[in-house]
Amino acid sequence: MRATVMYGERDVRLEEVPDPHLQTGRDAIVRVVAACVCGSDLWGYRGIVPTERPRRMGHEMVGVVERVGAEVEHVREGDFVIASFYDCDFTCEVCRSGFSSACLELEWYDGCQAELVRVPHADGSLLVVPQPSEELVPHLLTLADVMGTGHHAAHSAGVSAGGDAVVVGDGAVGLCAVIAAKRLQASRIVAMSRNPARQELARELGATEIVSERGKRGAEIVREMFGGIGAQSVLEAVGTEESMEQSVRSARQGGTVGFVGVPNGVPELPLRPLFTRNVRLAGGVAPVRNYADELLADVLAGGIRPGRVFDLQLPLSEVAEAYAAMDERRAVKVLLRP
Amino acid sequence: MRATVMYGERDVRLEEVPDPHLQTGRDAIVRVVAACVCGSDLWGYRGIVPTERPRRMGHEMVGVVERVGAEVEHVREGDFVIASFYDCDFTCEVCRSGFSSACLELEWYDGCQAELVRVPHADGSLLVVPQPSEELVPHLLTLADVMGTGHHAAHSAGVSAGGDAVVVGDGAVGLCAVIAAKRLQASRIVAMSRNPARQELARELGATEIVSERGKRGAEIVREMFGGIGAQSVLEAVGTEESMEQSVRSARQGGTVGFVGVPNGVPELPLRPLFTRNVRLAGGVAPVRNYADELLADVLAGGIRPGRVFDLQLPLSEVAEAYAAMDERRAVKVLLRP
Repeated sequence: MRATVMYGERDVRLEEVPDPHLQTGRDAIVRVVAACVCGSDLWGYRGIVPTERPRRMGHEMVGVVERVGAEVEHVREGDFVIASFYDCDFTCEVCRSGFSSACLELEWYDGCQAELVRVPHADGSLLVVPQPSEELVPHLLTLADVMGTGHHAAHSAGVSAGGDAVVVGDGAVGLCAVIAAKRLQASRIVAMSRNPARQELARELGATEIVSERGKRGAEIVREMFGGIGAQSVLEAVGTEESMEQSVRSARQGGTVGFVGVPNGVPELPLRPLFTRNVRLAGGVAPVRNYADELLADVLAGGIRPGRVFDLQLPLSEVAEAYAAMDERRAVKVLLRP
Repeated sequence: MRATVMYGERDVRLEEVPDPHLQTGRDAIVRVVAACVCGSDLWGYRGIVPTERPRRMGHEMVGVVERVGAEVEHVREGDFVIASFYDCDFTCEVCRSGFSSACLELEWYDGCQAELVRVPHADGSLLVVPQPSEELVPHLLTLADVMGTGHHAAHSAGVSAGGDAVVVGDGAVGLCAVIAAKRLQASRIVAMSRNPARQELARELGATEIVSERGKRGAEIVREMFGGIGAQSVLEAVGTEESMEQSVRSARQGGTVGFVGVPNGVPELPLRPLFTRNVRLAGGVAPVRNYADELLADVLAGGIRPGRVFDLQLPLSEVAEAYAAMDERRAVKVLLRP
């Protein structure tokens, strides 16, 4: 089969590799219907994170189950499934407490930018959905990661009906955080973005205000917008020290930063600004599997349309172009069809 | 009057200084009945934080109001009062939302290790209580800071009935955090302490278990004690990078670190360990004024006896010995009588 392999800075190739096979009785093999490129994939592509050895890429996909192991009970051959970006048994204490992304049985799997994928803990990791229309596929694909991650930012930041939400980051996760804040009925949703096209998309998805400044100045403007003291809920969707500091500065005394941007490198956060203003920090690797049922219901009902973050679709054979388009910010997020 | 002045490393003196006077119509002058030395006062004493110019010391006291400004409405001459360690108007939006320690009108005052103190925003900063017995004074004094701060750690960490609480730090705030966890009906309360006398006191105050190891090893033991995954609520009462890391490592996936230890220097926290395990961080400068009413009710009813953290009482004239006793860990916390 064909799969995407990262070799190093700006060197991503689609290659012929051996087909995956069942390794345990709890595995499933899934034939990919749609996959995509994640903002965090770009760190290796840009050389920010070194690629020490060739690495299979991709951790988001929807597809059709091709084979299941002998112990798999709830997933069957032919099922259409959404795969969470991590595997989980969905039965351990940590999964049950709402944090399946830190499942005690976590193995990490990837290689979703491919034709076939082996998914461990198939019963926990895969969400079976009714065979969808073509139109629905991009929306379902976001439940593998970005929509669940945007929701985690909003949920962690305590967004609630009538409240506020300031979203730092205008990538796919930031835009999904806007959708999530609207879904939770925030009355003021500020998108921080310098990009006119993304500003417009953010508005369409629910942003009520836009701030195009960044850093200290951007945070100062946010504080001015919210009574001179800042926002109760700040949704951080970037993962750099700069974006974290901007987020903390944008929060009011006693406010919360919900952070879901994958830490880029080994960022550290100064404690004093959190301490003096009692700003809370919550978030992390989004437990998208725990959120999938409620978000799926809204996708199926047409209440949210998170697939709109895909502004480019390419065949898997053009995966290198998909990375380039996102790297050059010509695309927010690229959907790939094997 | 006499007041305590820090000159530099291990150089604290009681000196004759001018009496304070009302500077605004909202001030009060309070005659100190009891004051004390805070763990954070030791940073200057130990030279960890440089003393650039002589500085008046102390931010915790109870006393009797001697004079009030023309605009003061709720506090009268002769009232017995508890002074929060910070001043606040207790009417601004931030105070009302529960974070009076970040009051929009905050001036910071100190100099409580003295005979007289000027307190700004007297109506907000001072809590009037019925004239207490001698026996009650130490307990009331803790509401100026340490008991409220221990409660803030527990509250921020989400301690609840039947839940857990791991307390990092065996100083007066850590011991008050134990009291607070017991008051909130945690069923397992772990005190992390290497000091036998403090271990015993922690047990008397409500700790159900003791861990004497520190750092990575201490956190490993805590994780083992809690199902191999760690505690839901960790109460950090030290303020160093080491204690923060120990706290984060002790928390379970999705757990919360309530941190109230004043950051010592400019500590930074690595984001990745928070991110990968979804550990939340909450806390900061404790809004003790917001907690004072509920804690006072329990002190007056005898439900909590936080004054037990004072294991040495000295006359104000021996303030230098008070600092030395705490510096050398001969005393947990010293109460001073002018």
